[in-house]
Amino acid sequence: MPAAVIDGKAISQSLRDQLKADIAKLKEAQPAVNPKLALIQVGTRSDSSSYIRLKQKAAAEAGIEFALHQFPETATLNDILSQIQILNEDNSVHGLLVQLPLPEHIDEALVIDAISPKKDVDGLHPVNVGKLVVRGSAPLIQPCTPKGIMELIRSTGITIEGKNATVVGRGDLVGAPMSLLLTSANATVTLCHTKTSDIVDHIKRADILVVAIGQANYVQGDWIKPGAVVIDVGMNYVPDSSKKSGYRTVGDVDYAAASKVAGHITPVPGGVGPMTVAMLMDNVYLVAKSSSQ
Amino acid sequence: MPAAVIDGKAISQSLRDQLKADIAKLKEAQPAVNPKLALIQVGTRSDSSSYIRLKQKAAAEAGIEFALHQFPETATLNDILSQIQILNEDNSVHGLLVQLPLPEHIDEALVIDAISPKKDVDGLHPVNVGKLVVRGSAPLIQPCTPKGIMELIRSTGITIEGKNATVVGRGDLVGAPMSLLLTSANATVTLCHTKTSDIVDHIKRADILVVAIGQANYVQGDWIKPGAVVIDVGMNYVPDSSKKSGYRTVGDVDYAAASKVAGHITPVPGGVGPMTVAMLMDNVYLVAKSSSQ
Repeated sequence: MPAAVIDGKAISQSLRDQLKADIAKLKEAQPAVNPKLALIQVGTRSDSSSYIRLKQKAAAEAGIEFALHQFPETATLNDILSQIQILNEDNSVHGLLVQLPLPEHIDEALVIDAISPKKDVDGLHPVNVGKLVVRGSAPLIQPCTPKGIMELIRSTGITIEGKNATVVGRGDLVGAPMSLLLTSANATVTLCHTKTSDIVDHIKRADILVVAIGQANYVQGDWIKPGAVVIDVGMNYVPDSSKKSGYRTVGDVDYAAASKVAGHITPVPGGVGPMTVAMLMDNVYLVAKSSSQ
Repeated sequence: MPAAVIDGKAISQSLRDQLKADIAKLKEAQPAVNPKLALIQVGTRSDSSSYIRLKQKAAAEAGIEFALHQFPETATLNDILSQIQILNEDNSVHGLLVQLPLPEHIDEALVIDAISPKKDVDGLHPVNVGKLVVRGSAPLIQPCTPKGIMELIRSTGITIEGKNATVVGRGDLVGAPMSLLLTSANATVTLCHTKTSDIVDHIKRADILVVAIGQANYVQGDWIKPGAVVIDVGMNYVPDSSKKSGYRTVGDVDYAAASKVAGHITPVPGGVGPMTVAMLMDNVYLVAKSSSQ
């Protein structure tokens, strides 16, 4: 039996509909509260601009005010830090994020550290990440992509507790916080990375597999444990002359082969991708709601 | 061939000798810098008092000034937070810790959050824990017991990178930060806990095994991978009428059986225990040194 497809687009749409209703309710109950997201962009990378447009559109749909603060590629660290300080202190702003990546001359860690943890809707500030580790101190804000993946896993109806979960990739945005969220949900997590020596064995044992390494079709079908939940975070562009654009988008997992073995699997595109922006909006809502209490 | 014993007592003594020399050198180079540790004790638990005496003694030996601030069992959260505030702002204090556990009416998380992350020599503040996760942002201060365990593992001469490490127990003091330090050292880490369903399999696969669950002789000898490095964090008291005290101290691992299979193993007592206080002193030194630069 082929794997059930985890439809991130539909799940994300339903979450966004719910969020829109929740925000309308919040505004009605507390007219003084108007959820607002401020975003700082440095430079004009076209991929960043596309992501920002997606966020702007999602904010508008949800009923979240959106303010974009743009700086030239040549902006200094101090320019950015000054703007962050202003937005940290601005009570009308609930969520604040800096679009990554930043130009090379700017230290990302210093920028992220400067954002008030209370407004850090990307969930990347060390104090929020630390609260993912410390027992009984869950942060209000969880990093968007792993938070979205937890929703996708829960949507399958499987029990997470007691399952073996393998996370491939230990990046700050997905792999590392993903391993923490899965441990908090009582899975037994193995975190794999470029230095892992027997990665296939770790993948074969996974009841829940999350792959976030950015290598097209890396995970083979026969590495998948039969019935596993497979979450593919990869977004890789491979040449394809049959497409008008000249390329097609594939994940880190060989979807055709894996979907014959897995129990549930996310497609690429349309799996994890649509969840991230929805979760960002949810984080803005959570901050606005907690600030109104 | 029986396992080589990892002599925590000797390794800790050699680190303490080195630290004493380093501190003397720091004081000579910068006479204005006088490393100082402040400790807050609430109540009069006898085990806490014993640990505090150990810390006081180790500080004296290392050349670290020590100040003990004692509060009655009935102290309020505000009493403790006010004292923390004073010590956070006192430039003569480099390291500040609150002896755990606290009386039940005081929220430990709020107390730990109040300690300046720069003086948090226990390494338990969420921002310091978060920096263990975020790539390329290692905190100045690492939690004492896991930091000591890394020294013990390194003392065996094995290569950590690429090894399978299983950590049993996900507590804030040992298991959770241990898994982060081992991942940073490029091991592939599986973090097991009370909800893990096939714990023996995870233990059997471990090239490096760290057990911190507080259950006497839980890990059996035939669960150990031949040649593994076995770190036993347990300190359990079992009745023993042949002892004058009426009990003996055993670890979480069946030492007699495991030491026939492992490559290297820590004894209990005399393994992990002596390292923790030495690492605490090292953390005070690191803060004092960085404050002098």
